[in-house]
Order: sequence, then C-alpha cells, then structure tokens
Amino acid sequence: MPTSSAATMKALFKHHAGEGLEFDPNRPKPKVGPRDVLIRVRKAGICGTDRHIWQWDEWAASRIPVGIVTGHEFVGVIEEVGSSVTRFKVGLRVSAEGHIFSGTDYNARTGNAHIASDTQIIGIDRDGCFADYVCVPEENVWPVHPEIEDRIAAAFDPLGNAVHTVMEAGVSAKSVLISGVGIIGLMAVTVAKAAGAARIFCTDVNPPRLALARKLGAAEAYDARDAGWIDDIKSQTRGEGVDVLLEMSGADAAFDQGFRALRNGGRAALLGLPAKHVNFDFNQNIIFKGCTVLGINGRRVWETWYQMEKLLLSGRLELDEIITHEFALEDYKKAFATMISGEGIKVLMNIGA
Amino acid sequence: MPTSSAATMKALFKHHAGEGLEFDPNRPKPKVGPRDVLIRVRKAGICGTDRHIWQWDEWAASRIPVGIVTGHEFVGVIEEVGSSVTRFKVGLRVSAEGHIFSGTDYNARTGNAHIASDTQIIGIDRDGCFADYVCVPEENVWPVHPEIEDRIAAAFDPLGNAVHTVMEAGVSAKSVLISGVGIIGLMAVTVAKAAGAARIFCTDVNPPRLALARKLGAAEAYDARDAGWIDDIKSQTRGEGVDVLLEMSGADAAFDQGFRALRNGGRAALLGLPAKHVNFDFNQNIIFKGCTVLGINGRRVWETWYQMEKLLLSGRLELDEIITHEFALEDYKKAFATMISGEGIKVLMNIGA
Amino acid sequence: MPTSSAATMKALFKHHAGEGLEFDPNRPKPKVGPRDVLIRVRKAGICGTDRHIWQWDEWAASRIPVGIVTGHEFVGVIEEVGSSVTRFKVGLRVSAEGHIFSGTDYNARTGNAHIASDTQIIGIDRDGCFADYVCVPEENVWPVHPEIEDRIAAAFDPLGNAVHTVMEAGVSAKSVLISGVGIIGLMAVTVAKAAGAARIFCTDVNPPRLALARKLGAAEAYDARDAGWIDDIKSQTRGEGVDVLLEMSGADAAFDQGFRALRNGGRAALLGLPAKHVNFDFNQNIIFKGCTVLGINGRRVWETWYQMEKLLLSGRLELDEIITHEFALEDYKKAFATMISGEGIKVLMNIGA
Amino acid sequence: MPTSSAATMKALFKHHAGEGLEFDPNRPKPKVGPRDVLIRVRKAGICGTDRHIWQWDEWAASRIPVGIVTGHEFVGVIEEVGSSVTRFKVGLRVSAEGHIFSGTDYNARTGNAHIASDTQIIGIDRDGCFADYVCVPEENVWPVHPEIEDRIAAAFDPLGNAVHTVMEAGVSAKSVLISGVGIIGLMAVTVAKAAGAARIFCTDVNPPRLALARKLGAAEAYDARDAGWIDDIKSQTRGEGVDVLLEMSGADAAFDQGFRALRNGGRAALLGLPAKHVNFDFNQNIIFKGCTVLGINGRRVWETWYQMEKLLLSGRLELDEIITHEFALEDYKKAFATMISGEGIKVLMNIGA
Repeated sequence: MPTSSAATMKALFKHHAGEGLEFDPNRPKPKVGPRDVLIRVRKAGICGTDRHIWQWDEWAASRIPVGIVTGHEFVGVIEEVGSSVTRFKVGLRVSAEGHIFSGTDYNARTGNAHIASDTQIIGIDRDGCFADYVCVPEENVWPVHPEIEDRIAAAFDPLGNAVHTVMEAGVSAKSVLISGVGIIGLMAVTVAKAAGAARIFCTDVNPPRLALARKLGAAEAYDARDAGWIDDIKSQTRGEGVDVLLEMSGADAAFDQGFRALRNGGRAALLGLPAKHVNFDFNQNIIFKGCTVLGINGRRVWETWYQMEKLLLSGRLELDEIITHEFALEDYKKAFATMISGEGIKVLMNIGA
Repeated sequence: MPTSSAATMKALFKHHAGEGLEFDPNRPKPKVGPRDVLIRVRKAGICGTDRHIWQWDEWAASRIPVGIVTGHEFVGVIEEVGSSVTRFKVGLRVSAEGHIFSGTDYNARTGNAHIASDTQIIGIDRDGCFADYVCVPEENVWPVHPEIEDRIAAAFDPLGNAVHTVMEAGVSAKSVLISGVGIIGLMAVTVAKAAGAARIFCTDVNPPRLALARKLGAAEAYDARDAGWIDDIKSQTRGEGVDVLLEMSGADAAFDQGFRALRNGGRAALLGLPAKHVNFDFNQNIIFKGCTVLGINGRRVWETWYQMEKLLLSGRLELDEIITHEFALEDYKKAFATMISGEGIKVLMNIGA
Repeated sequence: MPTSSAATMKALFKHHAGEGLEFDPNRPKPKVGPRDVLIRVRKAGICGTDRHIWQWDEWAASRIPVGIVTGHEFVGVIEEVGSSVTRFKVGLRVSAEGHIFSGTDYNARTGNAHIASDTQIIGIDRDGCFADYVCVPEENVWPVHPEIEDRIAAAFDPLGNAVHTVMEAGVSAKSVLISGVGIIGLMAVTVAKAAGAARIFCTDVNPPRLALARKLGAAEAYDARDAGWIDDIKSQTRGEGVDVLLEMSGADAAFDQGFRALRNGGRAALLGLPAKHVNFDFNQNIIFKGCTVLGINGRRVWETWYQMEKLLLSGRLELDEIITHEFALEDYKKAFATMISGEGIKVLMNIGA
Repeated sequence: MPTSSAATMKALFKHHAGEGLEFDPNRPKPKVGPRDVLIRVRKAGICGTDRHIWQWDEWAASRIPVGIVTGHEFVGVIEEVGSSVTRFKVGLRVSAEGHIFSGTDYNARTGNAHIASDTQIIGIDRDGCFADYVCVPEENVWPVHPEIEDRIAAAFDPLGNAVHTVMEAGVSAKSVLISGVGIIGLMAVTVAKAAGAARIFCTDVNPPRLALARKLGAAEAYDARDAGWIDDIKSQTRGEGVDVLLEMSGADAAFDQGFRALRNGGRAALLGLPAKHVNFDFNQNIIFKGCTVLGINGRRVWETWYQMEKLLLSGRLELDEIITHEFALEDYKKAFATMISGEGIKVLMNIGA
C-alpha cells in the first residue's frame, strides 16, 4: 500500500510507440502544485479510449505522448492538497473531471468547460490514473456521495457521457432510439429509463448486448442488419418515428438509419465517433425534417455530475450487469484482454485501498 | 340506450342559481354544425370545478350561465360528423379538449390554444358532457389509443393538467416538491415519477392522501403543518432545496413555504388557484433566488395529450388508487357526495355504452 | 380585371415536361370547398424553386405534376369564402402559408405544421398563385397588416424563411456568419441585424451580392474562395469563432468552412439544400465542438409570421434593394429571365388590382 | 497617485451607523492572498445600493458592516497578483464581478455563480472599490476590451444587470414593456433596442426620464399615473398585450399594471425590488395567463459579460446620456448629492490614472 511519504508509486505507462502498456513499480509520484490535489487512487476503469491507446491505432499514435501514465476514470481519496487549495480537504473520497482547462476560454467561463478550446485530458495529454496517485487541479475534483460505492464512482466518467447524452437530448415522456449498445450505449439505456423515457428502442449487431439492453429496459432491441426494424419502430410511433435518437455507435450506416427512424422535428444527440467522414444526406435527414442535432463531447462540468448523482441516489440505475469485472492493477494484461475481447463490458482495476 | 335518431337525451344541468344540479331525461340533443362532431358520451369525470358549480360559490355564480349542461371530462364515441368535417369518422372512440377557441388569436395559432384569449370551456361557458351527447368542433377531438381503457380516458382532462405541470417544470433527474396532493397533485406524483423525477417530496394536510402519495412514489410526504419539513428537504438536497416546485394546493401558506424549499435558480410551476390575492415576498422568493415561475392553465393543445398518451402506454402511471369510484349518471347525487366528502378521489359517472 | 362571376382566369402553368411555363388566358377558376378561401391575387414573387420548375431539372421532373399552375409567394384579397369558413371575410387583404396540411399529424397539432408529414405545397403539389385566383384552406390565411405594402407582403414566403432561420438560431447579442447571400441570405442579413445580431459576417462568391450584404449590415463580407477569411473571423471573435452559423448556400465547401468558423458550443441553422450527399466530418465539425445543428424547412406556422410582422413594423428591415423588379404577369418571360440571370434578386409579377 | 509600494491608500468608508460616508486618506491597502488580484482603481460608479448605504436605511443597517470601504462598480489596472494566480498578469486593464463565491455550491459550479448561496459582494459584505485599490479573487476578474472606454467599463455592473434582464427575458423581434426607467431601466431601453426588440414601451412617473427613454428608442413612454396606457399598449399589440415585461421599478402598482399589460403566455423578468411584500393576484396575473416569470439577480458570471462586450462593440448602445457626471473621489459629497437628487443618472468618481 502506498504512503504519501514514499517518493515513488506503481503505474501503467505507455512505454514505447506500439501496442500495450507497461507496469512500472517505481514511477515518481506527481508533484503537487499550489492549486492541485493529490489523489490516492482506489479503483480505475478501462475506457474504449484506453483500448485505442493499448492497440496504438492511428488516432493514438497521433495524440498520445509516449511515456505518460494512462487512465482517466477513477475514484480515490485526497492525500494532499496544494498550498492555495480552499475547497477540499485531505481524506475526502473523490472522483474527478478528467478534462482540465485554464479557465480563460468563453466556454470554461460559462458552465461549458467540457468544450473549452484549451482542454487537456488526464491519461491522454498528461499523466492519468492507472497509478497509485493522480494529481488534478482543485477545480476538477468531485466529492463522491457516501451512499455511492467505489465501483460505481470509478465509472463516473463513462456514466457521465451517457447521462450527458440522455439529458441534452431530453427523453422525459419521449420515445428514444439508442443506436449502438456498447459500454456507454448500455449505460444510456438504464439512464434513459430512469430519466423518464416512455419507450426505448435499441440497435446493435451484437446479440448478447441486445439481450442485455432489453433487460435494462429497452422495449425493442433490433439487430441493425435485419430488414424492417425502421418500419417496426414507425408502426409503434404513430407512423412518424422516434422523438429522440441517441447515436452511440459511430457506424456509418447507423447515422443514415438512425435519422430515417427519427420523426420530423425530432432531436438527435451524437456521441459515437465515426472512423472517417460520413457521406451524409443533409436534405432528407436534417433539413426537410426540421430536426435538431446535438454534438456530445465529454460531460458538462458540473451539471452532468449533479444529474448523475441524483439518478444514482434515486436507485433507478441498473449498473450491475454493465460493470462486469475487477482485476488488480498488476493483472492489467488480463483486464485489457477481458475488455478488448468483449467478454467484459466495463472492466475496473483495483489499485489502492 | 340513446340512439342518434331520438331527438332528446338525458343530461345533468344547472337548473337555478343555487346549490345542486338537476337531472333532465328529455334534454334536446345538441345541434351539429358543419365543423362539429357529435359524441355519444360513455363515461364522464367530476372535476373540482364541478364541485364549485354544484356548491354555487362566488366564482360559479359569477361565471356559469344558469341552464347549461355541466361536465367537461369524458370519453365517448363519434355518433355524427358535420358536413365539412374531414379529420375524424363516425365510430371513433374519442375524448376532447374542453377549451374551445376560434383559432384567430396569437396563442391559438402558435400551438398554445390552451391560453387563447377567446377560449370557451364546455360545461362552464356552454353545454358540457354530463349528458348522452356532447358536441365539440372537430379541432377539439382526440382519438383514444386502443390500449387505453375508458376509465382512464374519461380522466384525460385532469391527468392532462398534471402532465402539463410536470412537463413544463421539467422533472427528469431532478428533485421535486409537490405541494398539495388532491386529485391533480396525486396524479402529478405518479406522472413525475414516470417522467423521471429523481426524488419526490410532497406536502398536504390530509394524512390518507399523504400515505397514498408515498405509495405512488413520493420519497417523503410531510404534513405541511409540522415544523421542520423544509429543513428536512434541504438536508436531502445538498442544503440547497429542491430543483422543482409544483404548487397544486392554492394555499397561501404553501406559496411561501414552497418557495422557501426551492433552491436558487429552481423552477416553480403554479397550478393551484389561491382563493384571493397572496401577500407575497417577491424579493426572497423569486428575485434574489433567480428562479423561474410558470403559470399553468389547462394543458397544451396538443403537446400535452401526446405526452400523456406516451406516459400511459409506457405502463408507468399508477392511476388505480386515484380513480376510485364509478356511478350511473342517474346516481349523480351519490357521485357528487362521494367526491365532495373526500371519500372518493376521482369519481366517474357512467352514461352510455 | 377579373371578376368572381367570370368562370375563367389567366394563369401560368406547366404545359409539358420540359423547360418553361405557358400563359393560359382562360384557365378555369379554382373550385372553393366549404373550408376554403378564394383569393384574388395582386402580386406574386418568383422563388428559386420556380426557377427549378422553369428549368425542369431533375428535382422538378421528379416532383411537379405537369399541368399545374405554379407560384407560391403572393398577396391578394379574399374574393369568396366557403360555406363553413368562420375566421376571415371577403375583402380582407391577405397572404397565405403555402404548406397545406391535414391537421392530424403530430407536428401539425403542436404548432409545427411546417414540418407535418403530409404537407402539400401550393404551386408545387397543387395549383398555385401565378394566376388571377388561388384557393387555400382557411387555416392557411394570413391577414396582412395595413401598414405593410403589397410588394413586401408578396415576399412573405421567402422573408419567412429568413426570419425562421434567424430566429431558430437566435442571434440576439451574438456574432453570426451567413454563408450564401442569395435572395434569402440577403434577407437574413437585414433580419439578423434587426433581430439584434451584434456582428454579422457573410460569405459568397458573387461580389455585387457581397457588396449589398455590407450595405445591409454585414461588418465583413468575404469572397469564400479567398484564403484567410476563417482566421480573420476568429481574430474578431476572441480566437474562438462565431456564435451562430446560418448556412444558406447549399454549397459543399461552405458546410465544412462554416463549421470550422463556428465556435465550440455554437449553433448552426441549415437552410441551403446541397445538390447531393455531403462528405462530412462529424467529429471535428459537430461532435468535438459540442455544437447544435438545426434543420430549417419553410417557416413556423404561425410563430414566424408574427415575428415577421413585428420586425417589419419596427421599421428596421431594409428590403428595397432586395425586391428589385416588378413585371406584369403577361411579361413572365422577362420576369423569369431577369431572375435567372441574377440581374434581379427578388422579382415580382403584378397580376391583379 | 498611488504606488504599490505605499502601505496606505485613500478610500471612502462607512465610518459609523448613520448617514454618509467618510474619506480616509490613509487606509491600509488590502492584503493580496495567493489567488487574489490587486487592482488599482481608475473610475468607480455610484450604484442605487450605495445610496441606500449612504442614507443608512433599514436594509443598509441590517446588512452593511460598519467600517468597510464601499463601492462595487469600477474599472482599473492589475497592480499585483497572488502567488498562485495563473490567468491574468500585472498591467491588464480590468473590471470585476463583485459577487464573490467559494465555488463549491451547485450554482457556482454550473455557470450560475451569480446566485450561489454563499455569495459575498464587494462594497457590501467586504471592502469595495471606492479606494485606490481593491482586491478580488482571480476568478472574478474581467479583462476590458481595448475598444471600450474607462467610463463605460466603470459601469459594467449596472449595465450587466440591464443586459442580464433583457437577455433572460429574450426580446428579439418582440414587443417589450419596461416599467421603471431609473439608471438600469434606461440602460435596458438601449440594450433592448440593440438586442433586437421590435417595439419598446416604457412607464415611469418622472417626465425627464420618460423623455430620455423615448430618445434611446422607446416607441411610447407613459406616465404610469395616467389612465389608459394599458389599453393603448393593447391597441398596438393586436389587442393582446406585450410579449415581454421587464419590471425595473419595484413599485407595488407597477407589478399589477405590468402583468395586466402582458399577453397570455408572455415572459416577465423581475429586477426591481419591492420595499415590502406585494399583495398579488397570482390567478389573473400568472396562472390563467400561463406566463413565465424570471427572478433577476446580479448578472450571469460570465455569460452576461460576454453579451455586454458584444453589444458594446456593435456600436448600438447609447450610454452617453445615461452616464452623466464624473467627480474626483475627494468630491464624493457632490457626487452623491448629484446622484441622490436625480440631477445625475449614472455618476462616476475618478480615483486613479
């Protein structure tokens, strides 16, 4: 177990420009600036982004500085605070917003720091949380409500993506199509149900995930490759289509199909990232329909976090079958393999106590 | 059973300027204009407004024309359509929006006919639905979804009030205080829960109604006369107060208490009608708080009706303990007595088949 | 001059599947249904859509029924009303919403008839206004305010497109980029200025139109083919880009450039119709930016018309240099040539008195 | 002229619990904390609140700590920054948001710090800007755009109140009633016009202020004591009333009259503070009307400031006749007398260079 007096810590880092991560038992501990908070990490989650970093695909090669500690989803305890920190104290159980911003940008100053133009992300642009310690500015700290377990708090980051998408779109008393039920898509099913969606439809190409979507509250879960599902949705929505589309697959075909299933005047929230440009019919899909399309990036700092806390405390979110595995940090190879194979959905690593 | 060839029908009408209603077995059937629809009524609900008309209080004496057939909540079947009617056909099971508008007013022409300046209400300004037949313009007809039972459809009007209040305020992932759990307040509890409220608090001075509110989904239901409930709400809402206040009591004290329990920047939707002017602290309750206050009147024509249908079809509304009694029209004295005594909550009268 | 007793009228119609329109001095007058209003047309405008119909391009060939009277922008006087018409009287000066809807669709019933799924457009799907008379349902009639001249009222349809785009996007105290200053784009410049835009930027590839845009209130008007204008916009907007993009060109390149010039979290309203699918970077343009995109079709029935009336009466719209020419209906060939060559911007035809 | 090496400064402070302020030529300079910025004040404005403090009315006696330096409207230059300040540098010309918040409250963390529950205001709860130096946290600093003059920047605080009220209400293409044209009401006239109001009506009981309101853009400016002005407004607004009410008088009668002049479904923004509870008709004024009421407090941190900057740079705000007088700090008695008598509107004091 780490102690704050030790000068080093264990960590997973990107050792070289290629596949995998390496374990370092003696990484120097982060330096704590006057406005920073040092957090002893208890649990961290493996994100789809971490898989890209592990696999060292084109995006990762272009963005990730070799040598950094990766990981950005976590829960831990404040171990030390910088000299000018005023908001939080040592000993507090916390998670953190991983998007770090200077606070001088228009969006950062108006409640939209999640899309500030000068954002840095922990575990991507600077050292992250797959380590005994992670350091973030005081402004980024989120105190975890005592009734929320560590294993849930470790997944606040992706759960926040789901909550942000659902809440921006607005699902209360509406019919909703969620296209793509990966980690965040599945979370979006239970979030949409808790947030008052009247009827949830899902699509994917993975039958077990579709089955789980049904269990979590989807009225219908279609294999997107089957013919006829758009007509079936229309037959259940007065012939008009769904009120809301949550695009969480990033798949080219899903963009076109999703908008065809959306009613005139509907709202679409786009979270999934297409691998490349999409050859898109703006006329039929957006302009003639008079619909509204929302780009979704990260999660609101902090509106989304408050919404997430309230949804969790309502007891209406079902996350037990989404957060499937936990491994010790030292077993990171197994953890990544479980996540990459699809055997696990949200996979956590236990780091400290 | 009535037939459309008969020239008369049975009806309840306001016989004289005083308490009660009278039963007329031979009231002339309404004349059907070219754009009107004649509806054979199956079931009708007794509204709080009908109680005022029965009791002939100051408001009723100033508004209700002696001689009219009363009642405005109902479900029935189209029996006849006027010569220029194009939207609906004989035989369709329908309810109707009771607010009748000429369609030339700004609000009527922009999706807000519920607050048109020239509105007439059936059963209040012109003949209503406590009768074998009621006549309304085609524009006011709402086709009832086949999966929704008559006893629910007969209560669309007050349920629509509750849905409109809840949806205007916006409760998804929010904490909500409902002050006053009469008929519409109780409906608001189940609607708010279905629409995604994270935590529902209620107040009233009627213990059985408070108990029912708890059953329908309120986390806490306080006797408004007890000290300390505002502090208790604050202790459950980060010390700040609820996100949303739904004022459904019309009680003077409830206005002040409700706003005190509302957080800075919160939203209040006001449906309950105070009996007279309220001596109100705008500074503390609205201005310093920076909160938003919404006047709620009727229900949106037709946005609210679509929302209501979707909520009902979601299976998440619990109305069985709110719609408590049914009587034959001929037993209207018992029906009114049951409703006025508080023994019944929503009381229906069966009129036709 | 036509009289309502004559059985025929003059009209321009689509004689055959090919270029041009033909003049018929003896077209039968429209039949007036019970809910219809017959309007004696005074002035009509030539829309870009009419140019497509004249030129008989692929879109026109696929949509326009040969034989119909074309034209959908006009002002006139009510000559006759159907037997069940209640809202308007003979002699009233009116324009009309050209989108005709049955009124049973979700959007039609909730204040969004402009995107009803069963819309028919006059002059496109049924007989239009390039004729002595045009017939529309009572619901489609708009009384023209006495202070508004015929030449302005004849252009309510495209002006309504501009107003709808500007008002949906929301320009008050914002920086705005209008990409494409054709007829509607130029109208959008003066509308945006009147509606409170703080700073207006325009792009086009037509220097005289750019000069006119400057005259109407654009702070900067760039040739879209010149390098550096996006950077120039950023240098005038704190380095972040404009708050609002109004896309009115339909040009492929303009989509990408426009979104690059939009700040994170900005709003884009899309009115221009691309000729085909756009190869679009959703990640950089919408998702990472967290921006909101609005499809704009027609104009709100009737919210936009009220906004337009108020803007016109404010005296702040400058339309004199946009409505450039008037011809007699009989000179329709000159009128279309003037419009198609670009010599004229908004070209009107005088039909009756 | 002050220098940062001197240990004292000149200042106006509340010497005792009674009328007036006193001048101290040797007040100790504020201590600069690690996250604070020390600003050398150039110009400061006298607010209506400062008049209350000067006159030592009931509110002032209950809120203001005797001994503090007063004043909260100013422009100056950064003289010194604390050890952990990162956003701003010495020499920058700045103004500041006077509401100081700890940043842990829900509203402070979601872009609504202006209504944070733990706010302290400079010049009210702690030392203010009627002095050579004022100290505020880095988070409160606003860099002044180079094109904006000191005399305007010194009035950002009240101008921000006007901008916040106007922008929350939303005036673009709307008719607007401004009740009360004191300092902020007059600013609201020019702001509403620049922000796109279609037609502005004003009321007050002060004829010269009404005349100035007309000059700044009001179509009509009524003496509120005259009969018939509500009807006159209705005759100019289709018989329905204004779209928007901006209540800036705090007068009891104005509340009732203003709501009567507001159309059904309209929006009212309340900034003026009534001296005591208002005996208010919620039924007629809010509930039956279905209108929306917004409490306005301070100004959004920082959304309002960005809006204000853009409006100022648009060149459309006319403030020259609102900012009427400038005095040296030493002549503070004349300055206050000029403001209190109503001879001056916005009165500034020149403090440094």
